[in-house]
Amino acid sequence: MKAVQYREIGKGPEVVEIPTPEPGPGQIRLRVTAAGLCHSDWFVMDLPAEAYTYGLPLTLGHEGAGVVDKLGEGVTGVSVGESYAIYGPWGCGLCHACAQGQENYCTRAAELGIQPPGLGAPGAMAEYVIVDDKRHLVPLGDLDPVEVVSLTDAGLTPYHAIMAAQDHLRAGSTAVVLGVGGLGHVGVQIIRAISGATVIAVDTSDEKLALAKEVGAHHTVISGPEAAAQIRELTGGRGADAVFDFAGVQPTIDIAREVVAVNGNIHIVGIGGGLLPTGFFSTPFGASVRAPYWGSRSELMEVLDLARVEAVNVHVERYPIEEAPEAYARLHHGDVRGRAVVIP
Amino acid sequence: MKAVQYREIGKGPEVVEIPTPEPGPGQIRLRVTAAGLCHSDWFVMDLPAEAYTYGLPLTLGHEGAGVVDKLGEGVTGVSVGESYAIYGPWGCGLCHACAQGQENYCTRAAELGIQPPGLGAPGAMAEYVIVDDKRHLVPLGDLDPVEVVSLTDAGLTPYHAIMAAQDHLRAGSTAVVLGVGGLGHVGVQIIRAISGATVIAVDTSDEKLALAKEVGAHHTVISGPEAAAQIRELTGGRGADAVFDFAGVQPTIDIAREVVAVNGNIHIVGIGGGLLPTGFFSTPFGASVRAPYWGSRSELMEVLDLARVEAVNVHVERYPIEEAPEAYARLHHGDVRGRAVVIP
Amino acid sequence: MKAVQYREIGKGPEVVEIPTPEPGPGQIRLRVTAAGLCHSDWFVMDLPAEAYTYGLPLTLGHEGAGVVDKLGEGVTGVSVGESYAIYGPWGCGLCHACAQGQENYCTRAAELGIQPPGLGAPGAMAEYVIVDDKRHLVPLGDLDPVEVVSLTDAGLTPYHAIMAAQDHLRAGSTAVVLGVGGLGHVGVQIIRAISGATVIAVDTSDEKLALAKEVGAHHTVISGPEAAAQIRELTGGRGADAVFDFAGVQPTIDIAREVVAVNGNIHIVGIGGGLLPTGFFSTPFGASVRAPYWGSRSELMEVLDLARVEAVNVHVERYPIEEAPEAYARLHHGDVRGRAVVIP
Amino acid sequence: MKAVQYREIGKGPEVVEIPTPEPGPGQIRLRVTAAGLCHSDWFVMDLPAEAYTYGLPLTLGHEGAGVVDKLGEGVTGVSVGESYAIYGPWGCGLCHACAQGQENYCTRAAELGIQPPGLGAPGAMAEYVIVDDKRHLVPLGDLDPVEVVSLTDAGLTPYHAIMAAQDHLRAGSTAVVLGVGGLGHVGVQIIRAISGATVIAVDTSDEKLALAKEVGAHHTVISGPEAAAQIRELTGGRGADAVFDFAGVQPTIDIAREVVAVNGNIHIVGIGGGLLPTGFFSTPFGASVRAPYWGSRSELMEVLDLARVEAVNVHVERYPIEEAPEAYARLHHGDVRGRAVVIP
Repeated sequence: MKAVQYREIGKGPEVVEIPTPEPGPGQIRLRVTAAGLCHSDWFVMDLPAEAYTYGLPLTLGHEGAGVVDKLGEGVTGVSVGESYAIYGPWGCGLCHACAQGQENYCTRAAELGIQPPGLGAPGAMAEYVIVDDKRHLVPLGDLDPVEVVSLTDAGLTPYHAIMAAQDHLRAGSTAVVLGVGGLGHVGVQIIRAISGATVIAVDTSDEKLALAKEVGAHHTVISGPEAAAQIRELTGGRGADAVFDFAGVQPTIDIAREVVAVNGNIHIVGIGGGLLPTGFFSTPFGASVRAPYWGSRSELMEVLDLARVEAVNVHVERYPIEEAPEAYARLHHGDVRGRAVVIP
Repeated sequence: MKAVQYREIGKGPEVVEIPTPEPGPGQIRLRVTAAGLCHSDWFVMDLPAEAYTYGLPLTLGHEGAGVVDKLGEGVTGVSVGESYAIYGPWGCGLCHACAQGQENYCTRAAELGIQPPGLGAPGAMAEYVIVDDKRHLVPLGDLDPVEVVSLTDAGLTPYHAIMAAQDHLRAGSTAVVLGVGGLGHVGVQIIRAISGATVIAVDTSDEKLALAKEVGAHHTVISGPEAAAQIRELTGGRGADAVFDFAGVQPTIDIAREVVAVNGNIHIVGIGGGLLPTGFFSTPFGASVRAPYWGSRSELMEVLDLARVEAVNVHVERYPIEEAPEAYARLHHGDVRGRAVVIP
Repeated sequence: MKAVQYREIGKGPEVVEIPTPEPGPGQIRLRVTAAGLCHSDWFVMDLPAEAYTYGLPLTLGHEGAGVVDKLGEGVTGVSVGESYAIYGPWGCGLCHACAQGQENYCTRAAELGIQPPGLGAPGAMAEYVIVDDKRHLVPLGDLDPVEVVSLTDAGLTPYHAIMAAQDHLRAGSTAVVLGVGGLGHVGVQIIRAISGATVIAVDTSDEKLALAKEVGAHHTVISGPEAAAQIRELTGGRGADAVFDFAGVQPTIDIAREVVAVNGNIHIVGIGGGLLPTGFFSTPFGASVRAPYWGSRSELMEVLDLARVEAVNVHVERYPIEEAPEAYARLHHGDVRGRAVVIP
Repeated sequence: MKAVQYREIGKGPEVVEIPTPEPGPGQIRLRVTAAGLCHSDWFVMDLPAEAYTYGLPLTLGHEGAGVVDKLGEGVTGVSVGESYAIYGPWGCGLCHACAQGQENYCTRAAELGIQPPGLGAPGAMAEYVIVDDKRHLVPLGDLDPVEVVSLTDAGLTPYHAIMAAQDHLRAGSTAVVLGVGGLGHVGVQIIRAISGATVIAVDTSDEKLALAKEVGAHHTVISGPEAAAQIRELTGGRGADAVFDFAGVQPTIDIAREVVAVNGNIHIVGIGGGLLPTGFFSTPFGASVRAPYWGSRSELMEVLDLARVEAVNVHVERYPIEEAPEAYARLHHGDVRGRAVVIP
């Protein structure tokens, strides 16, 4: 089968031919219907050899959807031909976090060598993918896999961050979204869908701010030295009850720190490597700072339900699998509007 | 000044001339800009003498808004000419519930003889009204008092019920609204504004169901023997995660019981006198039943903020104070579409 | 192997010899180290033929613990010789509730014919038991299975009810425990362990009240016509913030209704068949009523952790498997102090 | 009357004679029965002139209790002779935070020039103190004011931090307390009283660790380079679900960062000036960091209720008002075991 792999440190993604995998006991093979590209793939491919821990070759694709093609021994409750999204942050399934479906916070995954598909395990950017357990499948039903595959990360990750802030997103509150890319443009829609908060979106280009408006932001602010003051003013001086930083670079983190309200909270979602010095004399009284990771099983169901009622709509650029490397290049240069998806 | 009073058991509301009241120390006099009519006024006026505990004569009006006209001694932080809504469920201000602004659950109000304006204390259906403490005022700013006065009860009461169910109103969930009158048509809007839930509205007339659609219900169902089955079907058999019964009569309560999902919840908001037998073999596993009362101070701020961003819009019929008795009659006969408001 | 079965409607439990079962793919066979008896076994055995839905013969025992004896095909992450408790309320593992480990509220179990061990599936009151999936196992480590097996129901069920009330069990609050039997005497300990609430225990006999005191109740009240008034007085007239009814018969439910505070809540845990009419003019403003069922996977881990730190201690009567019928008889007559456990 | 004042930058506290104040409208004068000393008094008195914003002279004492001595005009619901604790973090009483009794996060206090007694307004370290509004009084009843006065800060501040972490303090969880001084030794007791968490206390001296054990810590660890590794080991490698840093200096903040679990949280309570760099590659996935401030009105009621049931017990050193400067010196040198209280 065809697969998009990262094969050599520093060399970028390649389309290769590899053997089609067979499902072991308890496993499921999907024929991939869609696989999303993500900035974090680049983050991984940019790592120097000594920091790279995902194995080589690595079949990319941690956002995946497919149709059940073959069942491993002992698998029941799932049938060939059904359409599923893949829940990516695989955990042990047995620890206290996993017992609540929060496999993204599994306490034993590292110790047991469990890694997500596309981030250690073979990913979905291929004609077929193996899913280790049926609990990592969420039914798509009639949803178009191409339209929604990105929600498995670019939807689930903001959704998880936003739900953690739900108590702060009451009517009359203000949410700031920093970065209106793949995650951010979904994040704006989720905040609008699940709360009465006013949304202020921040990015560096007018084009991204236009997208923000299009997907529901009430206000937009150009990133830069004036941004914090403008946001403060939009909130009547009070600051933002919740700030979602989908870039996570130092400049956006600095804005987050300056605009968060007393008793508000900041969610660093983007892995831009910035850090926020938290404590008295740096952050307002009661303001919390957290870098959440991906999301839970039930949250993936919920974000797909938002797509089902058309409350969330991913802007998708489609590519055949052969053009995946080019799509990654566009993503890397910030040229993708919304999210890029490969259709094998 | 003119006032609408209930003066004699069984006799209904009357427009009378009474002395303009003076604010005592710590009190505030408002010149009333709007006062809402409510079914619970009729509930009170329908009580037999032995059950009536509100005093006579009773100036009606527990939904009120006004402009500060005169300050009692020692009042600071409030100025003549400012526009306010009145928070109605007055409590002692000092108990554990009141210390959280949940004066609607004050544990000492009854013992201390504290009653809401219009439900014991002189209400807002008059040219002037006395507010006992500035903490019972919520600033309206530029909001039109006539448009929003009803939110002090018909908005706050559903908002309080809905916020108590927020954990059940996750994306993919279903909410059922029973009764699309004054409270229900606001309730539909609130659910839409603060959650991603699908809303099914139920009422007895096509006109009410048309209103439900207009304000955002996804589905409507005619009340009656088929209603429960239709709702079950709309939820794929699973039932509703949250049911809000704004009628509270036995037939709607029976529907609520039949359609609530496992681990869902039912909120009996309307004081129609129905009761829901709760327990194994009657209600599904984990389903909770509760009759909430009015709402908290911060919730009133929030529901007014929803009006500020135009997420909630009360359908208002306007009446001069002289026509208040007629307006009450229309309300009583179910002829009011939305909410009736008196403008003194 | 030996097993305790219910074989004929109305005939009670019998000790019989049956074939030792073999684990299928994904299943685990445990050699049973302890199996608890429960009033709900009697509830089931008292059902008339037309209401009985658990199949015959039924191997009893929904509280079970054992040592892994044999693994079905494809089972990894579990090893022969390890000691586990069985999580009983088996669900589909895939629905929204199950994805959070709340298999007790699985929305598909009934439709799929999934039943708990001992309540449809063959139970743990036998020398060996089959567990359908490793996710239904919770590691016991060094815990004595006989001492803690009852926690899988008599601990988990109250724990689940109590955690749902945690927001109401703040410092200064009062909890009422109605019924100090198998579940109630554990419930008292759990409330003491996880909250600063004052506990009032109610039962019909001085012996049960002595047990309540022994396990941590602050106050005890004899059940009867004076109970409600005495509880009200102990709370300074305010009533109880949370009421846990472990009997669930009409007399205890009536007490619950009379003593619950404004905005408090009532948890009907015992399946005594009583019903609580909920609504205005019956229950206080804001008081909620709910009949929870069993508990979640992570909650079972937590309640076992309470045993690990000796915060919870079940009073256990031990029986060899041959004496199971006699033990059931003692349980039925209210002669068991705490909980009865069979050691095969 | 006698008062302990800070009169000159850099000069420390002095006992002086000043006029007895008169209560204005709505105010209450208390005859002080106890006033607590706090490290934050020293923090304030150590500030250079350009950073000092509390006015001079400043009557110290933000932990106060007293008996009502005289009522200002218009005050009802409070009577001469009653015993009260003072809620210190005064806010506007009208904003969204204050409407929930969270005056510690009042959004308008700074703008309106509202400051707590002892931290801007005249404090309780005097024979009499003026309380600006009855809502800032919490009834003590029979509680000994000397025994509990410290709870108004040294109890309320940890209680507020701990309650924000309550979801993380489930059975089986671990809490780390860094610093077992005035706040920390109360914090240990609160965690024990309201949760089933295992408590690990850390401090620099064996004496402080002995106090930690005495008040309920399960484990103690000497602060230093080995502390983080020892704590990790005590948690089986998983780390602490909640960390409460009552020192807030850089070394304790560094320990907090190293020991917090995935999805855990860190509460920086002490104003030692340390900062915690929060974000990917610094803090674990999902771990949140927050510097809370004091607590809410209802939380002060609750922490006093913990004292009422003897779940919390402050270690108190008593001083007559004339010896306040000496007591402050002892506190500054770390010689106070628990909390120092002045009895005017």
